[in-house]
Amino acid sequence: MADGLVLSIDGMGGDHAPDTVVAGVDIAARRNPALRFIIHGDASRLSALLAHHHYAKAASEVAHAEKTIGMEVKASQALRQGKGSSLWNAVASVENGQANAIVSAGNTGAFMAISMFRLRTMEGVHRPALAARWPSATGGYVVILDVGANVEADGEQLVEFAIMGEAFQRAVSGKDRPTVALLNVGAEEQKGHEEIRAAAQLIRDAGVDMDFRGFVEGDDIAKGTVDVVVTDGFTGNIALKTGEGTARLVGQLLKEALTSGPLAQLGALIAYPALQKLRTRMDPGTFNGALFLGLNGLVVKSHGGANARGFAAAIGVAERMALSHYRDEIKANLLRLAGASAPKQAAKETG
Amino acid sequence: MADGLVLSIDGMGGDHAPDTVVAGVDIAARRNPALRFIIHGDASRLSALLAHHHYAKAASEVAHAEKTIGMEVKASQALRQGKGSSLWNAVASVENGQANAIVSAGNTGAFMAISMFRLRTMEGVHRPALAARWPSATGGYVVILDVGANVEADGEQLVEFAIMGEAFQRAVSGKDRPTVALLNVGAEEQKGHEEIRAAAQLIRDAGVDMDFRGFVEGDDIAKGTVDVVVTDGFTGNIALKTGEGTARLVGQLLKEALTSGPLAQLGALIAYPALQKLRTRMDPGTFNGALFLGLNGLVVKSHGGANARGFAAAIGVAERMALSHYRDEIKANLLRLAGASAPKQAAKETG
Repeated sequence: MADGLVLSIDGMGGDHAPDTVVAGVDIAARRNPALRFIIHGDASRLSALLAHHHYAKAASEVAHAEKTIGMEVKASQALRQGKGSSLWNAVASVENGQANAIVSAGNTGAFMAISMFRLRTMEGVHRPALAARWPSATGGYVVILDVGANVEADGEQLVEFAIMGEAFQRAVSGKDRPTVALLNVGAEEQKGHEEIRAAAQLIRDAGVDMDFRGFVEGDDIAKGTVDVVVTDGFTGNIALKTGEGTARLVGQLLKEALTSGPLAQLGALIAYPALQKLRTRMDPGTFNGALFLGLNGLVVKSHGGANARGFAAAIGVAERMALSHYRDEIKANLLRLAGASAPKQAAKETG
Repeated sequence: MADGLVLSIDGMGGDHAPDTVVAGVDIAARRNPALRFIIHGDASRLSALLAHHHYAKAASEVAHAEKTIGMEVKASQALRQGKGSSLWNAVASVENGQANAIVSAGNTGAFMAISMFRLRTMEGVHRPALAARWPSATGGYVVILDVGANVEADGEQLVEFAIMGEAFQRAVSGKDRPTVALLNVGAEEQKGHEEIRAAAQLIRDAGVDMDFRGFVEGDDIAKGTVDVVVTDGFTGNIALKTGEGTARLVGQLLKEALTSGPLAQLGALIAYPALQKLRTRMDPGTFNGALFLGLNGLVVKSHGGANARGFAAAIGVAERMALSHYRDEIKANLLRLAGASAPKQAAKETG
């Protein structure tokens, strides 16, 4: 089914690159032998690693890159000086049609800037958005966006995020009609910022093709009240990081509790398999792979600190997206939106 | 030490009122027999409950109120029709000097509206803020504000929130110099909204007397990187609720894991005391009691669903605040701020 799918990999991006990257490719290649990879980076280091990863080696071609963009480099600097780096070349592979998607665990700001510069935004999209997944009480994963590509978003941009997030959720989860809502401080119509109320109105007016449920609150993310939670990049970034921080805190307190004495340790040992399941569920590696949506190309961001299994999960996201119709679905809904917002725009210009 | 402290209690506010309210007063009165309470509400129901709560009965006087404001009533409606209700009368007890503070688990919007209407904002405060506490990895509690009194805040208002939150943290934790930061999407100076950058600049320019640490991110809340996290009411509300939702999700998954089979159950039984400690730490009842800061009166909001122990915790917050010098500290810092922002304001008006 994935026949002919080629993934462009930034071999040098991430806290533990290139080791975890090659190990992650190995897991993905074993899982799906039809995948092909172009791994960009230091050829001698990558080849040495591939010698120890049979599946990755059989599926990969190494493309040498002279440079690596460090995790601390600013986006503007990456744009000026990044040419010839593993990240730059990995994006170029998608731009020139050699690959169907790029996956990188590298510097987020640099990755977004280079992707936007090289691939450009899709027609009808004002600003791309970063979409992440978060575990919910339903057993699935909620898509939340924007989690940091932009600091602000007006009503129309929020609707574009909703359209892109809905297509993303359908592609990764296989849900036919994911439910969508705007993140707000209350469920009532009159609550929140003007932008959010405008977005809700526009989704209804434009006849955007989605199961739109209005407003949800912060605790609805983990509850899984809806499948897609839409917000601006400032709020989304803070919500996601607050959730991550809290999950880490509870995990740490649980670990402390279960090592606090011999009885607790014995109990933890006996309950180990059950606790392990919980750990997997909340492990960011399980749901790794954020999508940089709205570009002419499929761009997947892995957590910088992801392990091999986490990187393989991000590759899995790229795979499912590449095999889906998400771009056509987004385009169709953007057309509906353009129809509804054009008169408003004209009114604004003449008014 | 608490000699002469009188607390005005909304006997009818909250999901389980008046039962949990009276039971909470009982816990607080047993802990500190010097406290006095005026409990507002249905006199016959309250008296019947007090008959079974010895400590509460000895310390309380019941003030009959004809009405109760329901949890679903809108703030505007509560303002128009709330006169004579237990909530309204409880606020009035503070306004007319009968009590040092009010504690209510009732309708948040109505509580804020009535408090603001009756008590008015402190001189130098543009908008009051709702401040909550959240457990952190340091073992203490982070103060976060605003968590929902206002949807927006400009730079100067954020500085006012910082001043009020710092004084709150000092009063409840006893920390002499709590550290303070603004919630942002990155630690770098140039990140985030204009309002946040303006606030950081103003705190430095005004020589506000606090240990200001610049910007923190969402995951720093649970890490406890600083003692006070300052943000606008929209972002703060969503961050707090996302954190609460995540903590609840992990708790639920843990419970599911530990009841998933006989071995897991045995392990949980053996580790029970340790797990109980974790539960207490993350139980919202332990750190219950949000403060509505910036009014001419001490206003404490308990979670609507808090149990008796949680309500007693909220009373504890009122107690510590009433015995502190938080108002004088806030006033002194507001004077510094007024000195620094006055010239800017003048420049804006002439410019």
